[in-house]
Amino acid sequence: MNNKNAIILTSGGLDSTTVLAIAKDQGYSLYCLSFDYGQRHRSELEAAHKVVQFFNVKRHLILPIDLTAIGGSALTADIKVPKKRSADEMELGIPVTYVPARNTIFLSYALAWAETMAAGHIFIGVNAVDYSGYPDCRPEYIEAFQTMANLATKATVEDALRIQIHTPLIHMSKAQIIRAGNALGVDYGLTRSCYDPTAEGLACGQCDSCILRLNGFKKAGIPDPVRYKDRI
Amino acid sequence: MNNKNAIILTSGGLDSTTVLAIAKDQGYSLYCLSFDYGQRHRSELEAAHKVVQFFNVKRHLILPIDLTAIGGSALTADIKVPKKRSADEMELGIPVTYVPARNTIFLSYALAWAETMAAGHIFIGVNAVDYSGYPDCRPEYIEAFQTMANLATKATVEDALRIQIHTPLIHMSKAQIIRAGNALGVDYGLTRSCYDPTAEGLACGQCDSCILRLNGFKKAGIPDPVRYKDRI
Repeated sequence: MNNKNAIILTSGGLDSTTVLAIAKDQGYSLYCLSFDYGQRHRSELEAAHKVVQFFNVKRHLILPIDLTAIGGSALTADIKVPKKRSADEMELGIPVTYVPARNTIFLSYALAWAETMAAGHIFIGVNAVDYSGYPDCRPEYIEAFQTMANLATKATVEDALRIQIHTPLIHMSKAQIIRAGNALGVDYGLTRSCYDPTAEGLACGQCDSCILRLNGFKKAGIPDPVRYKDRI
Repeated sequence: MNNKNAIILTSGGLDSTTVLAIAKDQGYSLYCLSFDYGQRHRSELEAAHKVVQFFNVKRHLILPIDLTAIGGSALTADIKVPKKRSADEMELGIPVTYVPARNTIFLSYALAWAETMAAGHIFIGVNAVDYSGYPDCRPEYIEAFQTMANLATKATVEDALRIQIHTPLIHMSKAQIIRAGNALGVDYGLTRSCYDPTAEGLACGQCDSCILRLNGFKKAGIPDPVRYKDRI
C-alpha cells in the first residue's frame, strides 16, 4: 500500500498505547479499533477513549461483540483472576485469563475495516517477552495471520491491497516498551492494565497484568502514574 | 481430537445446510453457529432456526455482531444488490456482495467456541466451483486459516487440541451439492439463499445467489421448493 492509513488495535492498556505513539511517530494516519467484548475490566474502554483523544486520531470505532456468550476465560466468564503469581508460575503454561481466539477475532475485524477502506496496515501491541504465555502473542502466529489475511481478501486480486501486520513491541521487554513510549511523550497515567480493577477503577496490583506492568516500570526506572489498591 | 464435537457455521442457506447433513452423516455432534450481522437478507436467520431444529442439533448459538459499522458490501451497507448477471459477468472479479473478511470473522468465532469446549472440528460450506468469486471461499485460504488457528490457540501446547477445518463442498458444483443433500434427506424448502428477498420472504430470483441456486437445481434435475418473486 502506498497510503499510510493504519488500523490500530487499541485496548486502553500500556502496550497498545505505546503502539499508537510509535505508529504516529512513523507518520501513519491512525484509525483506532476497540472492543466492548464483555470484559471484566471494562474500565479499559474509558482509558481507550482518553488515549485516542490524547493522540488526536482520525477515527475511533468501538465494536460491541459479546464474547461472554462463548466464555472460557477469567476475563469473560465467572472464573477468578489469579493473583500474586511469580514469574516462574507465569511461565508454566496458558493461564485462565487467556481469552480463546481473542486476538484472532480482533485482528479479523481489523482486517475487515482495513479492507473496507483500503488501508494496508494493521498495528497490534502483542509482546512475546514479558507476557502471560498467550499463544496469540507470538511472531509465528502473527506471520500466519498475515499470510491468511492476504489470501482472504481483495489482496488476492490486487497487489496494492496487501495487508501488513505490524507488531513493533513483539521482541521488547516491558521496561523497553515503557522507555520507548516515555521517549515519545506517552502519558501512561491515561492507560489501564489491570484485569480486576475495583469499582472505583483502582488497579488490583496483584494480577499478572499488574505485576508485569509494575515490574516494567521498576526496571525502566520510571514511576507508574496509575493508582493501585495494593501493590504486590 | 478424539471427540466428535463439531462447530458448524450455519447460515440457513443451501450450502451450510448440506454441510450439516454431511457432518451428521459422518457421526459428528453438531454445535451450530449463526451470526446476526446486520445482513440485508436477515430472513436467513429464521431459516437457520428451522434448519437446526430439523437436524436436532446439540446447541445453536446466534451471535449478534454488527458488520454494518464497518460496511463495504451490498449486504451490509446501502449498496444495490446486482441482478441478472450472467455466468461470465460473475467471473469478472469480486462482486459488491462480498463482505470484507466475513468468513475470517465467522471462522474466528467458531475457533473461539471450538477452543472453549475442546472441539477439534469446524465445518464451513465454502465452495470454489459455483460461487461468486469471493476470495475467502478458496482452498488456499482455508488451509492458511487452519495453519493460523493451530498457532493461535492451546493447540500449540497440546496436540490433542488441534483444530481441523472441514470444507466438504469446496470442490463440488452446486448441482452436486444439491444431489448430495437430497440423498441425505435435506429439506431444501427450509433453506434461504436470496441476498435481496421481499418483505414477505420471497426470493428475488435474480441476484447471483438465486441464479447459482436455480441453475444448480435445474442441473441436478430436482425442483427447488422455495418460492420466488421472479425467476430470471
